[in-house]
Amino acid sequence: MILVLHAHPYPGRSRACAALLAAIRDLRGVEIRSLYELYPDFDIDIAAEQAAVDRAELVIWLHPLYWYTVPAMLKHWFDMVLVSGWAHGEGGMALEGKQCLWVVTTGDVTKYALEAPHAHAFEAFVPVVEQTARYCGMRWLEPYVLHNSHELDDEHIARAGRKLRGRLELWLAEHRPHA
Amino acid sequence: MILVLHAHPYPGRSRACAALLAAIRDLRGVEIRSLYELYPDFDIDIAAEQAAVDRAELVIWLHPLYWYTVPAMLKHWFDMVLVSGWAHGEGGMALEGKQCLWVVTTGDVTKYALEAPHAHAFEAFVPVVEQTARYCGMRWLEPYVLHNSHELDDEHIARAGRKLRGRLELWLAEHRPHA
Repeated sequence: MILVLHAHPYPGRSRACAALLAAIRDLRGVEIRSLYELYPDFDIDIAAEQAAVDRAELVIWLHPLYWYTVPAMLKHWFDMVLVSGWAHGEGGMALEGKQCLWVVTTGDVTKYALEAPHAHAFEAFVPVVEQTARYCGMRWLEPYVLHNSHELDDEHIARAGRKLRGRLELWLAEHRPHA
Repeated sequence: MILVLHAHPYPGRSRACAALLAAIRDLRGVEIRSLYELYPDFDIDIAAEQAAVDRAELVIWLHPLYWYTVPAMLKHWFDMVLVSGWAHGEGGMALEGKQCLWVVTTGDVTKYALEAPHAHAFEAFVPVVEQTARYCGMRWLEPYVLHNSHELDDEHIARAGRKLRGRLELWLAEHRPHA
C-alpha cells in the first residue's frame, strides 16, 4: 500500500501539485491524505495518522517547496506523528524498512545556485527532509522533483503527472501480493 | 528594538529554551512572542506579526531544533507572514536590512557527523533557516547554538543564558537611540 501525504497551504492556487495528485488519485492501493484539508486547525489526529503509516509500505510526501523545505502542516505532522517510542528512539520501529518518496515541486531552478537568489544548489536543502526519513529507519528513494513548476505549460505538467503515475504503477506491480 | 519569536511545541518540557528566554525576558527593548502560546490553533494574526517585525531592527528565532529545522509553528509563521509583496518579491522590502539571529538548542552534538545517526555535520541543516532570512534581505548574524541541551547541567544552562543576555545587552547598547 502507498500512503500519500499531500500538503499544500493554498490548495486553490495549486497547479502542479494538483495535477500530480490527479494523475495518481484513482490508482488502487494508493491512499491520499490531504493534510491541510483534513486538519484546518492543525489538530492532527495522531492515532489516525500512525494507523495510516502502519498500513503503508511506501510513504510519499507530496508538496510544493515552501521556504526551502516542507510546508508547516507537513512539518507539524513530522513533529507530532514521528515521536520517540514510535518512530525512533527506544522501541520506535514503526517506520523501519518502509520506503519514502519525496515528491516536491519548486520554482525557477536557475535561482538555485551560489550566485543566485537562493545561494545554494537545490541539493543543499535536501538533508532536512531526507534525514527525517532516514532517522526513522526509512529507505530513501530517489526524489521526484518537478522544478520550474510555475512556468511549465499544461502539457509539461500533464507529462509529469503521467511519469509519476508510471513510477507508482511499477512500484505497485512489484509489490502486488502473490496470488 | 529586538523581537524574539519563541517556538517550543511542548513549553512544559522545555528546559534550555525556557532558561534562555528567562535570561532575557526583563531586558528593555526586547519583545518576546511565544508563538505556540499565542496561537494554539495555528491561526496566526498576520497583521499583528508583521507589525511586530516592523517595530524591530533585530529579529530572533529562538527554539529547539525539531527534525533538523524550526518547529512547525515557526515554519507556519514563515509560510504565512513572510509573504510575497511584503517580505520578498515585487514591493516586498519589509525585512530589508534588519538583522536576524538564530538561537537554537540541539541534542547530542556527537550525533551530527557522517558516520553518526544524523549523517551530517550540524552545518548541513543551516541553509534552510539561514536562506529564509537572507532571501528576505535580512543580515544573518552568527547563530547562537546551544548543543547537548538535554545533557547540560543547570549551571551550564544558566551560563548560556547569561551569555545570550550579554550579547543582546551589547546589541542594545550599540543601537540605543542617540540622546
